[in-house]
Amino acid sequence: MITTDILIIGAGPTGLFAVFEAGLLKLKCHIIDALPQQGGQLAELYPKKPIFDIPGYPSVMAGELVDNLMEQIKQFQPGFTLNERAETIDKLEDGTFIVTTNKGTKHHAKVVAIAGGLGSFEPRKPLIENIAFYEDKGVEYFVKDPELFRDKKIVIAGGGDSALDWSIFLADVASEVTLVHRRNEFRGALDSVEKVQELKKLGKINLITPAEVTGIIGEQHVEGLAITKHDETKIIATDYFIPLFGLTPKLGPIANWGLEIEKNAIKVNNALDYQTNIDGIYAIGDVNTYPGKLKLILCGFHEATLMCQSVYNRINPGKKYVLKYTTVSGVDGFDGTRKEAEKQVVKAIE
Amino acid sequence: MITTDILIIGAGPTGLFAVFEAGLLKLKCHIIDALPQQGGQLAELYPKKPIFDIPGYPSVMAGELVDNLMEQIKQFQPGFTLNERAETIDKLEDGTFIVTTNKGTKHHAKVVAIAGGLGSFEPRKPLIENIAFYEDKGVEYFVKDPELFRDKKIVIAGGGDSALDWSIFLADVASEVTLVHRRNEFRGALDSVEKVQELKKLGKINLITPAEVTGIIGEQHVEGLAITKHDETKIIATDYFIPLFGLTPKLGPIANWGLEIEKNAIKVNNALDYQTNIDGIYAIGDVNTYPGKLKLILCGFHEATLMCQSVYNRINPGKKYVLKYTTVSGVDGFDGTRKEAEKQVVKAIE
Ligand SMILES: Cc1cc2nc3c(=O)[nH]c(=O)nc-3n(C[C@H](O)[C@H](O)[C@H](O)COP(=O)(O)OP(=O)(O)OC[C@H]3O[C@@H](n4cnc5c(N)ncnc54)[C@H](O)[C@@H]3O)c2cc1C
Ligand SMILES: Cc1cc2nc3c(=O)[nH]c(=O)nc-3n(C[C@H](O)[C@H](O)[C@H](O)COP(=O)(O)OP(=O)(O)OC[C@H]3O[C@@H](n4cnc5c(N)ncnc54)[C@H](O)[C@@H]3O)c2cc1C
Repeated sequence: MITTDILIIGAGPTGLFAVFEAGLLKLKCHIIDALPQQGGQLAELYPKKPIFDIPGYPSVMAGELVDNLMEQIKQFQPGFTLNERAETIDKLEDGTFIVTTNKGTKHHAKVVAIAGGLGSFEPRKPLIENIAFYEDKGVEYFVKDPELFRDKKIVIAGGGDSALDWSIFLADVASEVTLVHRRNEFRGALDSVEKVQELKKLGKINLITPAEVTGIIGEQHVEGLAITKHDETKIIATDYFIPLFGLTPKLGPIANWGLEIEKNAIKVNNALDYQTNIDGIYAIGDVNTYPGKLKLILCGFHEATLMCQSVYNRINPGKKYVLKYTTVSGVDGFDGTRKEAEKQVVKAIE
Repeated sequence: MITTDILIIGAGPTGLFAVFEAGLLKLKCHIIDALPQQGGQLAELYPKKPIFDIPGYPSVMAGELVDNLMEQIKQFQPGFTLNERAETIDKLEDGTFIVTTNKGTKHHAKVVAIAGGLGSFEPRKPLIENIAFYEDKGVEYFVKDPELFRDKKIVIAGGGDSALDWSIFLADVASEVTLVHRRNEFRGALDSVEKVQELKKLGKINLITPAEVTGIIGEQHVEGLAITKHDETKIIATDYFIPLFGLTPKLGPIANWGLEIEKNAIKVNNALDYQTNIDGIYAIGDVNTYPGKLKLILCGFHEATLMCQSVYNRINPGKKYVLKYTTVSGVDGFDGTRKEAEKQVVKAIE
């Protein structure tokens, strides 16, 4: 059982920054995310694109913003349960919560903060009858660890950035890379399209277009794929099949937690602390809704901050908290490090 | 008469960022500030100190954050009335406003956004009977333009960072710099204290401590100062007297505009758009108050953003606005420039 003060569901920018604000108040956080990496939409959907409306950043790459947030919260040593989806919640008699993931991992927390964005990212799966049987047996919807594919034969399917970029990356890792797409045209950064073209010419990527993977064969693990091109189907041997057709966010299991839902988002008390209709469960960032709500990164930061103050009062009833400026008081990490402004001196001049 | 869509009172981080969010919605802004420079508390009180709780910045110097905000809003060409205090407000029959400064500058705007922080920064003045007579005639509470002091004799009074830093800077500009402080000890960055010590040894700064400026003489302009040390008073000749005893923020004239005030701050509707009790006047950042309010920079950013949406609806009644992501739609400046993400291509690979 993992125990923490605030269990955060969602490692997007909102969930990550909440760790920092909680840390300033000496509260510990643990984050669950369905994706294998931190950063939510920024890391999964547009890591290499610039954002222009983060205050104080005339321009910042989404991936860089995530890296900076990870660096900023490092001092507060958040725990992570990645690659698992928060599935059920139980409120105990003492008002604390147990949240269990689809893989059975249990988390015990004083407070739950849902920072689930548009929902848990679930892969769009190809319509192949027996595909579920091969999941974790050669079918992978994410490239979690490229080393898994070292010296293996792989088939990637898809026509967007992920399919292009992983084909390029894995061309140097796998023994054989085949890229299958149902059109001849790919949609992505010019760089990536050109690089795939080049690797194809060098014989480092086999390209099969316009074509579709229509079947999977193998006894206990993927051994081959049926690939259909112009109504003709061939079997090719492979160790792995990686369909990269994008992800769709689904509010998913959280929709059944008894929370008030409106327009696929969770209603919160925006006049105070972004708490939901269930005492002790907060919702911050894209996942919540209230009059005037804007689904912007900077709004999630503010909501996370106000929420942490409310959590502090909840966990430390009666204890008076006086807001401290980080510039004036510095930041003491749970890892023993301290950040602080250079001290002023009081010194005579003779 | 200066005309604009949103007249912002206060060029602190909140007011500055409001220009950006307004610009995204094609609304023009003009800012009034009592200080000679932009940045509010950050520029005036701690420009060289790090802030640790700006989201996405593990650490950023306050002055650097202001520079970045100025760079970010440049595309939207905000107007500035600096060095003047917003004094009176008149609501016209059509619901628009005229705001007049202490120097008589008039601004006509559809909406007024008060981002006045802790208030208009007013210099703490030394208790010298006839000092008011010499204001703008040799007594300067700010160093607005160092060139004013080129080859002049100046006397600076004070024992903190500003007094130290301006003495150092002006040692190369003025013909003679005298620094007067009522104690021997100065309070500031070690660097600055040591530098003043060095300049004193080199004869580039005259130091008179522990002493106080107790009188001013001169017919139409400052000609000399009475300086009292150990009950003994001497007259020294000077062209300028620059007392740098810090600034105190005063809500000031805004307190009389008919706004609901609580704990020296303006009450706003935080459940919607940060509007005050007067229709068309908003209050954002440190200057406002509501249940759970935190006087933090990141909160001002969020408040400014939600306010701009409300202003858009007010100015464009009935026009439907769909939120656009800067990453997806880019940013079109009023200066004709455009920022945008690299375009994706759709391209065949043969
Ligand atoms: C192409 C694009 C461009 C954008 N451009 C901008 C921009 O310029 N400016 C801007 O401000 N915003 C922009 N946005 C929006 C911005 O990305 C979102 O506002 C932001 O990501 C919201 O952050 P969040 O932390 O609330 O949620 P998210 O980033 O969505 O993260 C939520 C995380 O929660 C996880 N999760 C959800 N439910 C569960 C569960 N049950 N179990 C486990 N994990 C779960 C998800 O897997 C996800 O990783 C853009 C979005 C897109 C798609
Ligand atoms: C030493 C110190 C350290 C701090 N550290 C942090 C930190 O680490 N993190 C953090 O988030 N915050 C910190 N703060 C607080 C932060 O500086 C404020 O939250 C922030 O400055 C508020 O921004 P603002 O734009 O709302 O107002 P301000 O920065 O106060 O700017 C308001 C401006 O409005 C002007 N003004 C007011 N009334 C009038 C008028 N009638 N006419 C003309 N001009 C007017 C003022 O002159 C001023 O320039 C710190 C503050 C101090 C003093």
